[in-house]
Amino acid sequence: MADSRSRDAAVSDRMHTMFHRGSAIRQMFEEGLRLKEQYGADQVADVSLGNPDFAPPVTFNRALHIMAREQRRHCYMPNAGYPEVRDTVARHLNRKGLFEDLRGEQIVMTCGAAGALNVVFKTILDPGDEVIVPRPYFVEYRFYVDNHGGRLVLVETQDTFDLDVDAIEAAITERTRAVLVNSPNNPSGRLYPQSTLEALSAMLLRKERALGRRLFLISDEPYREVIYDGRRFVSPAAVYPNSFMCYSWSKAFSISGERIGYLAVNPALRTDDWTTLMGALAMSNRILGFVNAPALMQRTVAAAIDAEVDLRHYAAKRERICATLAEAGYRFRAPEGTFYAFPETPEPEADFIDRAKRHLLLVTPGSAFGREGHFRISFACSDATVALACRKLMTLAEACGLPPSKRRVPAHV
Amino acid sequence: MADSRSRDAAVSDRMHTMFHRGSAIRQMFEEGLRLKEQYGADQVADVSLGNPDFAPPVTFNRALHIMAREQRRHCYMPNAGYPEVRDTVARHLNRKGLFEDLRGEQIVMTCGAAGALNVVFKTILDPGDEVIVPRPYFVEYRFYVDNHGGRLVLVETQDTFDLDVDAIEAAITERTRAVLVNSPNNPSGRLYPQSTLEALSAMLLRKERALGRRLFLISDEPYREVIYDGRRFVSPAAVYPNSFMCYSWSKAFSISGERIGYLAVNPALRTDDWTTLMGALAMSNRILGFVNAPALMQRTVAAAIDAEVDLRHYAAKRERICATLAEAGYRFRAPEGTFYAFPETPEPEADFIDRAKRHLLLVTPGSAFGREGHFRISFACSDATVALACRKLMTLAEACGLPPSKRRVPAHV
Repeated sequence: MADSRSRDAAVSDRMHTMFHRGSAIRQMFEEGLRLKEQYGADQVADVSLGNPDFAPPVTFNRALHIMAREQRRHCYMPNAGYPEVRDTVARHLNRKGLFEDLRGEQIVMTCGAAGALNVVFKTILDPGDEVIVPRPYFVEYRFYVDNHGGRLVLVETQDTFDLDVDAIEAAITERTRAVLVNSPNNPSGRLYPQSTLEALSAMLLRKERALGRRLFLISDEPYREVIYDGRRFVSPAAVYPNSFMCYSWSKAFSISGERIGYLAVNPALRTDDWTTLMGALAMSNRILGFVNAPALMQRTVAAAIDAEVDLRHYAAKRERICATLAEAGYRFRAPEGTFYAFPETPEPEADFIDRAKRHLLLVTPGSAFGREGHFRISFACSDATVALACRKLMTLAEACGLPPSKRRVPAHV
Repeated sequence: MADSRSRDAAVSDRMHTMFHRGSAIRQMFEEGLRLKEQYGADQVADVSLGNPDFAPPVTFNRALHIMAREQRRHCYMPNAGYPEVRDTVARHLNRKGLFEDLRGEQIVMTCGAAGALNVVFKTILDPGDEVIVPRPYFVEYRFYVDNHGGRLVLVETQDTFDLDVDAIEAAITERTRAVLVNSPNNPSGRLYPQSTLEALSAMLLRKERALGRRLFLISDEPYREVIYDGRRFVSPAAVYPNSFMCYSWSKAFSISGERIGYLAVNPALRTDDWTTLMGALAMSNRILGFVNAPALMQRTVAAAIDAEVDLRHYAAKRERICATLAEAGYRFRAPEGTFYAFPETPEPEADFIDRAKRHLLLVTPGSAFGREGHFRISFACSDATVALACRKLMTLAEACGLPPSKRRVPAHV
């Protein structure tokens, strides 16, 4: 140990490896900054990041202003959050039809969905336990599972990016503890249909009986309000009983920096000891160092919980991107939710990412999500950036010699 | 695994053990609630919790109000925090004389000191690495070290609760990675003198040379503004070069629920790769699920960073408690900092805690901090609660038959 640490004695071996393994994306990010300096920020179409920088809903701003003016206290509350906030969230989820009889006691307020996922993993994972994740997937999941000694097991999705229930079933072993799904999906934009979720649930219930032990479903759904074409969101966490729902207001309210979200346990989860389960979740929140979700933000999102989120600007940007991708001849499926498109690269991925960079278009390679041969475009950006990105996508398609025969009209047009 | 899990299939074995091991304190807490219901909250002197519920400084309230009114954006920023906030904190620490040439790049904004400690441990610990902690100690440290596969090694302090540098030296092994100190100390109230810290630093530097590798000092100092009798705070993190300072505004600003703090790396820390060290710390903040410290609170504490914290109310409460303890004949040392007193129990600890409870006085047993035969009184409570607690302390001393001969005048009187 002492020897290998000589590389950099200040950082653990484990962290050293993780840090330098992640350097490709960091280099890309730094190169992006360099390009913007060199050519001017308005010449570079950076559609690589999923950071919605829009004004929060008016209701949220108003609630925050009132909270600040009232100068309430800001001290600790129970680790699971303010009881009245938890009740408000539970009533909200019941009213929206996501659950029927959820109670405040089945909720833990968390530092965003990232906090919620870590709290769930800390609570349910023993070292070596496996968590199945369909790919393409949000890369942070690997760290969240690893933080608690778990092991990520990746499975393929269908060509349509819908879940492949058979593939998930085939991946279940004696050490499987949970399946983690993300709908609508970052990066594919796929919203899992109710029929798929019901098939998943039926399979998991069958496997639970066969294995004689619990299999959990964890649903990461921060994008659930960001969906298009009048589609209806069905929560995976509501379809399967032994589920944890992880939510964040980051995307819906454009407040990703405030770290406010929650986890909700499906009230139909079968346990003979709810006290231990909810107590252990609150204890995880505490001992991981979150302690509790930020106090002021708990009260603010509760006060603004019925804010109507106007996502029309995303819809317009999505139309524009999809129309361009179709016209230019890229192979892709129009996203049903999220603010990402995930087309196929018209040449080997690394070549295309490089070519795009030379044209000052910054996108994220599909391999960063475990699905090579694709690239992710984020349209959580200004109209000007979308317009610039679209022009560059057209140019790139021509440069790659995309023939008109490959053009495909997206599903929604 | 499957078998042992049958105890409660919803929670991991590891978490199950931790949860039920912690049940003594939880039971005490619940019993406290029950007592308050049964006898009326005003009849119970609950001095068991360290939760300062006072109004934050006026400057903080004003800054928060302005921030909320301005309706700024709330999106992600770099994982280490807003660069301008980090610069403000660095300048503040230099101005206060805690460091001389600290720069914003050597700071990571965190979700309180609990977040800071977890980020440091994630960054520096490999599985099996040891962290030395003098006792009595804040029990959460055990979890924070365990979260990252480390092992807590406890050492005794001197009778005065000052650090025993020889004991720390004797505990250093091939696997020691860090020493964690907390000054002023929860629960003992001891502020480590500069001479002790210099002896600690000299010993650690000597051991580093002997072992041929890095030994870190981690300083947890959320109480550093809560000190009495004109004493001057010396940061352990400033005395020894290879140090991390972990801070939270929870106590100074009475905003424990907001989860805002930072870690600062001593600029004299010897590493040939600052980029990896700071990058790894920021990455830990991200992958542990904190992502970043809450955005609005970062800007608010930066705007209020020079707020003069009026701690006179703590001083008055401390006087009252110390005078009572002395008069009643308890053996104790007056706290030099924090809002805790930590007297010896005049009879076996468990008996005294029980007796106190029957008298409706709720205190925390010393064994909860790894030092049996003591009890912790928190005076982060109202004057009425302090007065009630003092009356009960007198009654208990009589009931325990504390003879006048055992009375000892505390150091500061």
